[in-house]
Amino acid sequence: MKITKDLYQSSLALLTDFYQLTMAYAYWKSGKAEQEAVFNLFFRKNPFQGGFTLAAGLDYVIDFCRNFRFDKDDLEYLAEMKNSDGTPTFESAFMEYLEHMEFKCDLEAVEEGTVIFPHTPMVKVKGPLIQCQLLETPLLNIMNFQTLIATKAARITYAAKGDSVLEFGLRRAQGIDGALAASRASYIGGCSATSNVMAGKLFGIPVSGTHAHSWIMSFDTELEAFEAYADAFPDKCVFLVDTYDTINGIKNAIEVGKILRAKGKEMLGIRIDSGDLAYYSNIAREMLDTAGFPNAKIVASNDLDEQIITSLKIQEASIDIWGVGTKLVTAYDQPALGAVYKLSAIKNTEGKWEPKVKVSQQSIKINIPGEHNAIRFIRNGKAVADMIYLETEDLSKTSFTIIDPIDPTKRKKIMTKGLEQEKLLIPIFIAGQKVYERPNLGQIKENARRNLNLFDKAHKRLVNPHIYPVGLEESLYQLRTDLVFKMKNYDGEESNI
Amino acid sequence: MKITKDLYQSSLALLTDFYQLTMAYAYWKSGKAEQEAVFNLFFRKNPFQGGFTLAAGLDYVIDFCRNFRFDKDDLEYLAEMKNSDGTPTFESAFMEYLEHMEFKCDLEAVEEGTVIFPHTPMVKVKGPLIQCQLLETPLLNIMNFQTLIATKAARITYAAKGDSVLEFGLRRAQGIDGALAASRASYIGGCSATSNVMAGKLFGIPVSGTHAHSWIMSFDTELEAFEAYADAFPDKCVFLVDTYDTINGIKNAIEVGKILRAKGKEMLGIRIDSGDLAYYSNIAREMLDTAGFPNAKIVASNDLDEQIITSLKIQEASIDIWGVGTKLVTAYDQPALGAVYKLSAIKNTEGKWEPKVKVSQQSIKINIPGEHNAIRFIRNGKAVADMIYLETEDLSKTSFTIIDPIDPTKRKKIMTKGLEQEKLLIPIFIAGQKVYERPNLGQIKENARRNLNLFDKAHKRLVNPHIYPVGLEESLYQLRTDLVFKMKNYDGEESNI
Repeated sequence: MKITKDLYQSSLALLTDFYQLTMAYAYWKSGKAEQEAVFNLFFRKNPFQGGFTLAAGLDYVIDFCRNFRFDKDDLEYLAEMKNSDGTPTFESAFMEYLEHMEFKCDLEAVEEGTVIFPHTPMVKVKGPLIQCQLLETPLLNIMNFQTLIATKAARITYAAKGDSVLEFGLRRAQGIDGALAASRASYIGGCSATSNVMAGKLFGIPVSGTHAHSWIMSFDTELEAFEAYADAFPDKCVFLVDTYDTINGIKNAIEVGKILRAKGKEMLGIRIDSGDLAYYSNIAREMLDTAGFPNAKIVASNDLDEQIITSLKIQEASIDIWGVGTKLVTAYDQPALGAVYKLSAIKNTEGKWEPKVKVSQQSIKINIPGEHNAIRFIRNGKAVADMIYLETEDLSKTSFTIIDPIDPTKRKKIMTKGLEQEKLLIPIFIAGQKVYERPNLGQIKENARRNLNLFDKAHKRLVNPHIYPVGLEESLYQLRTDLVFKMKNYDGEESNI
Repeated sequence: MKITKDLYQSSLALLTDFYQLTMAYAYWKSGKAEQEAVFNLFFRKNPFQGGFTLAAGLDYVIDFCRNFRFDKDDLEYLAEMKNSDGTPTFESAFMEYLEHMEFKCDLEAVEEGTVIFPHTPMVKVKGPLIQCQLLETPLLNIMNFQTLIATKAARITYAAKGDSVLEFGLRRAQGIDGALAASRASYIGGCSATSNVMAGKLFGIPVSGTHAHSWIMSFDTELEAFEAYADAFPDKCVFLVDTYDTINGIKNAIEVGKILRAKGKEMLGIRIDSGDLAYYSNIAREMLDTAGFPNAKIVASNDLDEQIITSLKIQEASIDIWGVGTKLVTAYDQPALGAVYKLSAIKNTEGKWEPKVKVSQQSIKINIPGEHNAIRFIRNGKAVADMIYLETEDLSKTSFTIIDPIDPTKRKKIMTKGLEQEKLLIPIFIAGQKVYERPNLGQIKENARRNLNLFDKAHKRLVNPHIYPVGLEESLYQLRTDLVFKMKNYDGEESNI
């Protein structure tokens, strides 16, 4: 097992659920492998009981699709699988088919940093059934996690009301790229820096950090430790003051701050990592001000999230910079988004597209059929509503009615005059060729900022947000209803609600 | 950004918090880089409000340490960092020092699959201060996550009372190795297979899976879909019955089961992925039995965890195999373990080891000083107590008193006669050389099983478990108390509780 160095050198095609491969084989056996299909990746509820979601992960999806192929050792692994009678699970002709498989789907997606809501596709894949199917698991893995963390970061930075938020989560993150992808998504969502040096190197995110308790403990006294740190980094002194006693720590920081000043340098501030942050930050502020350090910043950390930051803000804690870790990078209160990837249309043997629904006893689990897209209506820089519509829809109409996908009594009529329209899903690959020019991470972060500004603060409220209207265009709604009735067979002998 | 293929080819030395590097530099500047130190990695509370923790992750730690070095591009990245006045953050002599750094620590650890409790070190690193410090973050990242998931898996398989548990979490896991490491740790903790094909390939874990709703939806009828699947995998038919209507789905599965039987094959069973699992599994059992399929298994999935499995067991649901995903691989109810890594001793300039404590206002945050290890006392195959002791302790004594690290009124006297002793931390690296023979994953899984069997079921109870006794040997307890008193300076002018 060579996790640290060699793991990601080979293709990631096997990073999928085994049932995708058994289905792939069975599609191939049934002559359906190349039948064209449309799948949509979407989620059903905003995370964290919030009012919005911030999309992230597309850049990884692009990499995944570009590298999509079965390598020799992947095929060798599959070839070794046996049935109970000792025959190979997969015929050798199928292995050859996999060996020569090239990604040739159309893929549309919302750009990273786009605010998105339940039921709207974040990614749409159209292509050979077998390829669409094999992409399901990795696309979900990538989009679920990064979207979750970007959203969490947007909530936390919203709570910080413009203060700088630093992401410190590497040590508690779920695995190596659980950390790296989280650093990237956190930066997109609004954090200003990360502690993760590799994320800094790979993604160009600013890195941040000074010293830990162990630094202090490795010296005989805290004062010596602060002095030694100031010698090494006269320009970057943020002293961690709570190793032994916070008040004494602040006194020692001030003492070294004065030594620095005598040398023409200024300490940047102090950090408090334990105890009552409201209480100690206010004491620290007063001590620093009194000692002539009104510009020294106070950094706070210790299991912070958007709720605790809000509470500290209400208590008027004197905190300038927020270090967040575990609660951000693991999305502690809801560590999975729960996006799904559903077949919505398939081309039948006569070459005609058939829309598809999966019926469920839970209404929220009924997917949206057909090939659809979504558009955002904007008035004077503020988003008014999103409409999910069939690709065949005429978007130049002067009015639309949208219907809530769960509660058909909730409808909204939209007069398009004077409204800007922003298409949410845009082409990324056409027939397997990338047609999308990737923005850099700074542009993605700016897109997130712009997107979040489109929405009224009522939708961004952390608790009990105002629900932003997203609906199915009437004819799409009707199509879905008809299909569900047909599948549920209410005219048949016995049927279930 | 090349996440999928090239990310893990370079060294992982930069997979650390930036403050580890600033401290490393400052240690080097202060002449302390090679000063010898001891750090311990431990956690303070069992996860999930449970009574035990199952260690995992050591194999990754070994890989990390063996590959530990700063590559050329790592150093180039660091060399580009600048102070506010434009001078380089790190002197070039320091870069040279990093370039030639070779891992030369002693490292001891508990083996994977060991049951472990709060305060006991899971990993102990002894070596140059600078190296110990640089290892902190990656070791925490690895051990925190895998230990968390192995523990969760042990709880879930405990709830399943011997039934097979399959891990299905890839699509909701936190990143790529958030999934892979979780599959591995889940297998160690007791799962019998994974859906993650790459985890199967890399780690040799059995893979499992049949088909999804999309398989059914790609055919005109469910019956056709089942028939086509049975054609491709006559030996491996587990039919997913809830795409449209669960009862009809079971009828269709039975129909295809009869076709298979006519060809001399047996369907393995059915899977239910939604709706009331207790209700539908019992109906399914009755229908399958009546139709002559008493051996067909019923697989259930849909947001299962140990609590829901326990509830379904109490309701006498007819479920034979449990598919668990999100709640397992993200450790949904507690997605981070919170282990820490603390300096416990340092060799002073006279070559004498000095024990160290970090004092805190929260008593649980006071670490255990000195170079210590832990031993488990076992009577007739059952663990009696764990003792944390100074390496200088004489283990041949006939009795020990252990004291709870938090509440000194909780003590236990241990007469060693007739007790087996199992040392928990064993040597992995000595002076940077691996001395540990790695077990394979099957052996690790067996070690976990053996370890879990050492403990009374009262400690494994999912809710309100009986607390297993773990204490500090008296003289270690006394050392800690003395150091805390000294640090808190109760004899000084003004001191705080």
